[in-house]
Amino acid sequence: MSGNGAVGKTGRGRFLEDFAVGERIAHATPRTVTTGDTAIYMALYGPRFALQSADSFAGACGLKRSPVDDWLAFHVVFGKSVPDISLNAVANLGYADGRWLAPVYPGDSLTADSEVIGLRQNSNGTTGTVYVRTTGRNQHGAAVIDYVRWVMVRKRDPDSPAPETVIPDLPEAVTPDRLAVPEGLDFSGYDPVRAGSGHFWDDYAPGEKIDHVDGMTIEEAEHQLATRLYQNTARVHFDQHRQGQERLGRRLIYGGHVISLARALSFNGLGNACVVAALNGGRHVNPTLAGHTVYAWSQVLDRAELPGRRDAGALRVRTVATRDLPCDGFPDKDDGGRYPDGVVLDLDTWLLLPRRG
Amino acid sequence: MSGNGAVGKTGRGRFLEDFAVGERIAHATPRTVTTGDTAIYMALYGPRFALQSADSFAGACGLKRSPVDDWLAFHVVFGKSVPDISLNAVANLGYADGRWLAPVYPGDSLTADSEVIGLRQNSNGTTGTVYVRTTGRNQHGAAVIDYVRWVMVRKRDPDSPAPETVIPDLPEAVTPDRLAVPEGLDFSGYDPVRAGSGHFWDDYAPGEKIDHVDGMTIEEAEHQLATRLYQNTARVHFDQHRQGQERLGRRLIYGGHVISLARALSFNGLGNACVVAALNGGRHVNPTLAGHTVYAWSQVLDRAELPGRRDAGALRVRTVATRDLPCDGFPDKDDGGRYPDGVVLDLDTWLLLPRRG
Amino acid sequence: MSGNGAVGKTGRGRFLEDFAVGERIAHATPRTVTTGDTAIYMALYGPRFALQSADSFAGACGLKRSPVDDWLAFHVVFGKSVPDISLNAVANLGYADGRWLAPVYPGDSLTADSEVIGLRQNSNGTTGTVYVRTTGRNQHGAAVIDYVRWVMVRKRDPDSPAPETVIPDLPEAVTPDRLAVPEGLDFSGYDPVRAGSGHFWDDYAPGEKIDHVDGMTIEEAEHQLATRLYQNTARVHFDQHRQGQERLGRRLIYGGHVISLARALSFNGLGNACVVAALNGGRHVNPTLAGHTVYAWSQVLDRAELPGRRDAGALRVRTVATRDLPCDGFPDKDDGGRYPDGVVLDLDTWLLLPRRG
Repeated sequence: MSGNGAVGKTGRGRFLEDFAVGERIAHATPRTVTTGDTAIYMALYGPRFALQSADSFAGACGLKRSPVDDWLAFHVVFGKSVPDISLNAVANLGYADGRWLAPVYPGDSLTADSEVIGLRQNSNGTTGTVYVRTTGRNQHGAAVIDYVRWVMVRKRDPDSPAPETVIPDLPEAVTPDRLAVPEGLDFSGYDPVRAGSGHFWDDYAPGEKIDHVDGMTIEEAEHQLATRLYQNTARVHFDQHRQGQERLGRRLIYGGHVISLARALSFNGLGNACVVAALNGGRHVNPTLAGHTVYAWSQVLDRAELPGRRDAGALRVRTVATRDLPCDGFPDKDDGGRYPDGVVLDLDTWLLLPRRG
Repeated sequence: MSGNGAVGKTGRGRFLEDFAVGERIAHATPRTVTTGDTAIYMALYGPRFALQSADSFAGACGLKRSPVDDWLAFHVVFGKSVPDISLNAVANLGYADGRWLAPVYPGDSLTADSEVIGLRQNSNGTTGTVYVRTTGRNQHGAAVIDYVRWVMVRKRDPDSPAPETVIPDLPEAVTPDRLAVPEGLDFSGYDPVRAGSGHFWDDYAPGEKIDHVDGMTIEEAEHQLATRLYQNTARVHFDQHRQGQERLGRRLIYGGHVISLARALSFNGLGNACVVAALNGGRHVNPTLAGHTVYAWSQVLDRAELPGRRDAGALRVRTVATRDLPCDGFPDKDDGGRYPDGVVLDLDTWLLLPRRG
Repeated sequence: MSGNGAVGKTGRGRFLEDFAVGERIAHATPRTVTTGDTAIYMALYGPRFALQSADSFAGACGLKRSPVDDWLAFHVVFGKSVPDISLNAVANLGYADGRWLAPVYPGDSLTADSEVIGLRQNSNGTTGTVYVRTTGRNQHGAAVIDYVRWVMVRKRDPDSPAPETVIPDLPEAVTPDRLAVPEGLDFSGYDPVRAGSGHFWDDYAPGEKIDHVDGMTIEEAEHQLATRLYQNTARVHFDQHRQGQERLGRRLIYGGHVISLARALSFNGLGNACVVAALNGGRHVNPTLAGHTVYAWSQVLDRAELPGRRDAGALRVRTVATRDLPCDGFPDKDDGGRYPDGVVLDLDTWLLLPRRG
């Protein structure tokens, strides 16, 4: 049995014992992202941010063409890490310190690498938490995405010794000075009419809540198509025969699918927030299953200028997604931090918008 | 509350009071159509018209490559108009005077604009009809599609005054002299063997009926993927949680999805009718739901020469689509114009075919 | 009624009487394969072979870019033959002597032609077997795929005379000297880390069995999207209204869909077997329906050097796919050649892998 959990020639995924702090893991399956992927992404979620929708609009904003949706790039990088990091994960616990460092364009080939930055065995002795920093790079070796996630994984053998506890020091949020603006991006000629929203960076105030109104019901075929598109192999998403024997009895939907749905829904209210610059944090607080209708609302947490720029600014936005629960009442965790049953996602990102200048 | 029905930063769609005859509306979200879209369109409907299927075949017909399916281009343009025109529509009542003016090629970026050309409040005082002419243009500003549609929309306030009634003068059908032939198209070397049909323009006679035989059962995932691909945001197509509380209790399938299915099925009998040149009229006469199997039949209404051309001619064809009702009996409206429960679509188009010369 | 089974202008498919040994049939609907198709193929099956996934990886292996997945190319060619060969097929009985002769790249336009090479009426007098050799060619006329299949088709009229029996002489397997290696392919710099497998050609031994572990549940929308993508028109896959009146009461899943699922699953254990070079044989031994979870296992049947090459070798691999039956027990036919109810596919291929050199 090797360090990657293989049995014979078949990979079974790593267990807690298979990780060591400081280890660097080169993930498999480089992936060229194409306009085929962007079209499927459109069909899966229906995003309407003009920058990613039309080469003509992107060109007027200084880019050579429409970049790939930021979350599509994220999911592709994330997917590569699954066979090495989370195939046997019990839960995907959180994200931190994520940044989109350069736009991904159709034709770019992405690879992913992770470094193990933390380990902690749980008191039950049968599971533990693994912290990894994952970096996606394009064919030129330039980092395009970088983020930390932590997952709960099983131990192979409860009697094996606990690893030394290392908990990484993670920022509560990315500071605005660390946000990357896509090279060439210039919002000075931004067209709010064709973009579909007259609300600029200047028009949002910290504390403001926005109900995104619309809902999307998820079908099994949809989340499976999405998750395979990202080459994410976690079997809980695909194998009804085995899932039927588990507690929920159902296939679980990849959390990233819900992120992308919430992001697409958020166009209605955040229509000019067309670049995702940072993932400050995120939690999948309840499972989403096929048949659920996803709704979302957002709250502006902070507003920051970008160094040396008058054309664009950053909003820190918290987006909450729900299942079968419309968001006109802004369903939220209680004072004890407990989420209502209908809430599935609590996501904290920095978004870039044009400024009135 | 603004003229586009927004509540705060969230669009809720326009009501009857929000329209004025003569108003021009620039729709949001320009869209670059790619081979990704054409591939998904293939997966959704399975069209087999050789001109759109193979660059090699299109090249032999004088085009630089395969154009985007005419209805795919239509749906993309239509989708852009939904947030401004029909988000609160009770019904999509009809189409008229539609023309495809120039082929759309992968890589083209489409925008859409509409002009309000008619308004009429219904006698119930709670709804009315809005007529718009919508034009799709490519990145060069050239019109590629132009059509009229009219929808029934709710009034926001039943007590608000009725708008002045304006009913546009619409042709019963596009006259053949107004049909546009794609630039460069030359059917003189058309290969009927590879096209899959030996029946040319000359072989069809007005009055002739054709059963297209095959049926396609629609799944929820399929129509949702399609409708999002077109960035059509009408929520009746996506939100089962809310639709479950409505009369039918189900998501409604975008009428254009049924048009594209019927068009793909029509290959069996109209295999050389590879260009859709005009939309004379169309009605969605019953709703289609997931689980329905769509069949179709067509009748040749008219046959017209094209000015100065011996290689191509036009057929005016009426196509009727059904749900769970095979079409060997050519199910049709009765003398009173009432449609059988199984009929869902009655569509009237001009199609271009090669001539024997 | 013509030789292609048309009724009026509508094709109904050929019957046994419509075939003659020696006849060559040029199939309709040439098809340009694009990155849109490869992306949908990814979404449908989730393959992880690096050669087809990333242009960068393919470039490092001497190819100009990632070729189209071998089975995607196969299905496209196969689909073209359906309207002429198997629209009325009772069963797809087998494959033999299939070879991939040249890689297909995005942008290539494929056509397909078949030759009838065998005929035999069954003793019941109502059906018979048709053997065809089908060849797919690219826009340069170069053969890219060539294979034999045989299907059971109905007679139109049980009283019509039986055709002369001709049974083609088919090899039990393609001999290794007849395997084509993609032009330019050079595995000398192959990167097993990014490929996701450290197991080379040298590491597999005849007789070895591999459980591919993972399972994929099939949804109706998925197999319909796939089968339409291949322009395969066999109506048993699409028409629930009519299928509901047949014995199984359900739509049948195109056998090729199961092949592609099994192939994608086989990555887990055969991760470097990135080129499918030959289809020695294959049988769909039980129907697969939506809701079934597909698993697979493989056995190495043979190992062959490639003439003049030290960088690559060939493995003859038998892959068995199942429905709702995990493969840790390697479910197989019994000594009498009878398959368990859970087995759906028995496939025999030659695969190319890098050698340790």
